[in-house]
Amino acid sequence: MADQYAQSGEDKQPTGIPAIRWEEPPEGPVVVLLDQTRLPAEEVELVCTDASALVEAIGSLAVRGAPLLGIAGAYGVALAAARGFDVDEAATALAGARPTAVNLSVGVRRAQEAHRAALAGGGSPGQAAQAALAAARTLHREDAEASARMAEHGLRLLEELLPGGGHRILTHCNTGALVSGGEGTALAVALAAHRAGQLRRLWVDETRPLLQGARLTAWEAARHGMAYSLLTDNAAGSLFAAGEVDAVLIGADRIAADGSVANKVGSYPLAVLARYHHVPFIVVAPATTVDLDTPDGASIEVEQRPGYEVTEISAPQAPVTGAGGGIPVAPLGAQAYNPAFDVTPPELVTAIVTEGGAASPVTAESLAELCARSRQEALG
Amino acid sequence: MADQYAQSGEDKQPTGIPAIRWEEPPEGPVVVLLDQTRLPAEEVELVCTDASALVEAIGSLAVRGAPLLGIAGAYGVALAAARGFDVDEAATALAGARPTAVNLSVGVRRAQEAHRAALAGGGSPGQAAQAALAAARTLHREDAEASARMAEHGLRLLEELLPGGGHRILTHCNTGALVSGGEGTALAVALAAHRAGQLRRLWVDETRPLLQGARLTAWEAARHGMAYSLLTDNAAGSLFAAGEVDAVLIGADRIAADGSVANKVGSYPLAVLARYHHVPFIVVAPATTVDLDTPDGASIEVEQRPGYEVTEISAPQAPVTGAGGGIPVAPLGAQAYNPAFDVTPPELVTAIVTEGGAASPVTAESLAELCARSRQEALG
Repeated sequence: MADQYAQSGEDKQPTGIPAIRWEEPPEGPVVVLLDQTRLPAEEVELVCTDASALVEAIGSLAVRGAPLLGIAGAYGVALAAARGFDVDEAATALAGARPTAVNLSVGVRRAQEAHRAALAGGGSPGQAAQAALAAARTLHREDAEASARMAEHGLRLLEELLPGGGHRILTHCNTGALVSGGEGTALAVALAAHRAGQLRRLWVDETRPLLQGARLTAWEAARHGMAYSLLTDNAAGSLFAAGEVDAVLIGADRIAADGSVANKVGSYPLAVLARYHHVPFIVVAPATTVDLDTPDGASIEVEQRPGYEVTEISAPQAPVTGAGGGIPVAPLGAQAYNPAFDVTPPELVTAIVTEGGAASPVTAESLAELCARSRQEALG
Repeated sequence: MADQYAQSGEDKQPTGIPAIRWEEPPEGPVVVLLDQTRLPAEEVELVCTDASALVEAIGSLAVRGAPLLGIAGAYGVALAAARGFDVDEAATALAGARPTAVNLSVGVRRAQEAHRAALAGGGSPGQAAQAALAAARTLHREDAEASARMAEHGLRLLEELLPGGGHRILTHCNTGALVSGGEGTALAVALAAHRAGQLRRLWVDETRPLLQGARLTAWEAARHGMAYSLLTDNAAGSLFAAGEVDAVLIGADRIAADGSVANKVGSYPLAVLARYHHVPFIVVAPATTVDLDTPDGASIEVEQRPGYEVTEISAPQAPVTGAGGGIPVAPLGAQAYNPAFDVTPPELVTAIVTEGGAASPVTAESLAELCARSRQEALG
């Protein structure tokens, strides 16, 4: 079950409203989410009192973004354990809520394994629940630390690739504090460049169909005082042609062992444009996004989402008139092809940046080495 | 002044509601437009009783599409003449209503010159007005004939490039009966393929920001019984990568003497994707779209449209809440970069098809020759 309450206006800083938090009111533990489907019009939180509410929130994209999905999955397992539900059942439902972002199942498994280990070691259900929560909290903290390190490594890479600063960076979808325990992935790098006085312009793709760029990235960029302009995804081509893009920075939902990158649909066309215009195309993601069990791009399952996300426009203030809950913009009965992600092959990716550094050129070997380095950083 | 009336449900065939027509009710002549901003939700006609109503309709995109803009411009001049307004003043306002489509000023000039010639030859103002109207009607009829010939030439080209049929064609924006005196440009070719049993799938880019693909092309495709699927412009990349696109067919708003093609924003990224995937990229437009006075792509003026087309969603049924008359989807104060068109260089265009045939490869020489041939076809 999820309740909603509107956020007070007091702490409207970018870091003021966490995308996810664990709370323990007298009625029992809850996971509180900032409902991302309602931004930027309204800042409303969803209070999940069980794992199934969280599964629904994941499916509706109230909580989204690969790293944050991992954290949400871990807290969901902890919530099931703390509330006395069947932990393995909850874990299965959570891990299967969306198929493409590997971080989700990684996060779920981590809390589930901590829970199992505590029970196997003779712990009580209460102690096992505490162990699951501790695992979720550790993941949350690690993700925040990974964000900070990705920002550093990404900024250093930009300085190497584009000496002289004044970067004009194009980004797609939303990869900031809303997707992470910290300041995010690709947007955290752009933010580091902004703080270093190196960002001339952030070009924000609106990111159809769900407009995460217009709704979320623009909202974060405005709050940080970054110089940004919004554009339709279509208009990116004109910017490349005019020489107005120095680098593309995006996140990732799953990176295969060969370096193929699944990310929000529209990333691949940007990679092709970037290659055609000799512009660096940089992927920023925590090492947990790399899935060495997925050998290549063709093995990545791409989530197909409902056609009504394309045939109807849903905006927080829009009246509900269509079957999908939005305003129809296509003829009744129109069929739509609506993959949530696309896959960019490694040969189009200039570099992959994780908390451990950068792999460039992107090969199976450089990526494996980067993952090993990232694990060491996490341990060290 | 423009009045509106809803179309009766009787003649709802694709060819049943003309995009533009001249009528002479007792109150005086009018130009009647199908209001394209209201489609597909409502079929409403705009009745323009003077040229300034038509200028407004052109600016708001109630009437749009390069060939149709030429016809509208010519009828607008005829309307000013018939109603006794200053014809040169009306012609200037009409020709300047939108900058990129060359057809608009070509159509305006044609009616204006017929009017001038009639007066210079000693004709009365009434006779001059008749001459302007005759010029507009000739242009309208010629455009319908040009559509039919473009469809033939385009289909023949598809058969040459893609022997075996079963074409899966990707198109962008709207290029059918709504932009033309006939069945259109690129969509007329797809329709010819459909009628010949050669069309396996029409992939319809929704075409942000104004969704001409979702609203208009899907509407036309559905009425013709074509097998079509709508997609966000972002998802085209996934289709190319999956080998699901055999050819791209688009229209044009202005073609420079070197073969550079200005068309709806988002065309250039498709051209780059098509090149990367070795897929033919075909431009279909009447020869009036070729502007030999514009030497190259850099010389084409690209219309910049208001940012609110990106920061707000406007749909016919949506309540007006934003400054631009739509529903805000971005934070208040968000700036947007909103070019209406982009320019594709000739080296990325496989062929340009006009009523005179096809130019391929596209060079200044092949294009000049094609224009000469098109003029001969028109005369012959």
